[in-house]
Amino acid sequence: MVTNKQIILPPFKRGFHLITDLIHHELGNVPENGLLHLFIQHTSAAITINENADPSVREDLENYFNRLVKERDPSYTHIYEGDDDMPAHIKASIIGNSISIPIVNGMPALGTWQGIYLCEFRNFAGKRRIIATIVS
Amino acid sequence: MVTNKQIILPPFKRGFHLITDLIHHELGNVPENGLLHLFIQHTSAAITINENADPSVREDLENYFNRLVKERDPSYTHIYEGDDDMPAHIKASIIGNSISIPIVNGMPALGTWQGIYLCEFRNFAGKRRIIATIVS
Amino acid sequence: MVTNKQIILPPFKRGFHLITDLIHHELGNVPENGLLHLFIQHTSAAITINENADPSVREDLENYFNRLVKERDPSYTHIYEGDDDMPAHIKASIIGNSISIPIVNGMPALGTWQGIYLCEFRNFAGKRRIIATIVS
Repeated sequence: MVTNKQIILPPFKRGFHLITDLIHHELGNVPENGLLHLFIQHTSAAITINENADPSVREDLENYFNRLVKERDPSYTHIYEGDDDMPAHIKASIIGNSISIPIVNGMPALGTWQGIYLCEFRNFAGKRRIIATIVS
Repeated sequence: MVTNKQIILPPFKRGFHLITDLIHHELGNVPENGLLHLFIQHTSAAITINENADPSVREDLENYFNRLVKERDPSYTHIYEGDDDMPAHIKASIIGNSISIPIVNGMPALGTWQGIYLCEFRNFAGKRRIIATIVS
Repeated sequence: MVTNKQIILPPFKRGFHLITDLIHHELGNVPENGLLHLFIQHTSAAITINENADPSVREDLENYFNRLVKERDPSYTHIYEGDDDMPAHIKASIIGNSISIPIVNGMPALGTWQGIYLCEFRNFAGKRRIIATIVS
């Protein structure tokens, strides 16, 4: 059995944000066993799993990826949507636009230190749409 | 229910290529609800989702990843399959060799600006094999 | 039908390691058709698919990612868990913490040259926990 549910995230500022609780709340009850897939329908944001405790990890990730994928690189030709646009596309393909998490004992089976991150790469982003798919 | 289908891509030149229509055509009818998984059975190419409109995004991605993962780096030891080989393996693990897309209302639920990309990292590649799996 | 199984990997040294046989052994018999998902419940290790033949590919990957994500970068603020900790988190989000592989004819349908890698980013890591999920 496969069910899809749309989740609308409110606008987040540029950066890496912990959204585990928000996703759990939107999902409500999940089956006893299964697989959860979260897919963000955008090409200038990403979704990943990383450390859920210390906010400094999110800050360091934002700073690292800004250095890895520079703005205003003279080689960019896709430049008319803003300095943050082409770097956002590159970051999206490096980090990825979906994650899958096993569902065990009626819960997404994240490790003790794992949380779900929204990676917002645009300076002024609006709401973001995620499709949650549960296979059970 | 899970079905697998093999899709053979024709040879593409090195670079990032939009293959959304080709994949849709090969898939034919898909179920009303489900999950689509596309898996490329190679280690010197990748598959990702990115902007579907402006070809300059694909050009900039190709140029960016060529700078990020240089050829003829003196530290490489895996060098006997060509200058493009070890960089291809590295890029494959950065971008990834599979994507999953929710199926909603009988269609892969890509966002408005999302397309499916083949990332061909070899200079002279042959056909590439993708396994499409549909869970419904 | 979805089944989950926990796989405990023994400690591996820092680096990229081929674990295809270990995973096959732990899985035992798999269904005729399906989808296999492997999820590592940690944020300082990753799992990927890459070349299964030449160990030099694994060495070059380890060296490349150590150069890409440097230790003791003065911009890091998350520094109290060791020099290898923040780089491990960054590498985990670049490479990713899960892979999905189609199951065809009763076998994970890896390409001829594809193997499953554990990417261990910590200098002194313990056992690692993977959740294997099979959808059939």
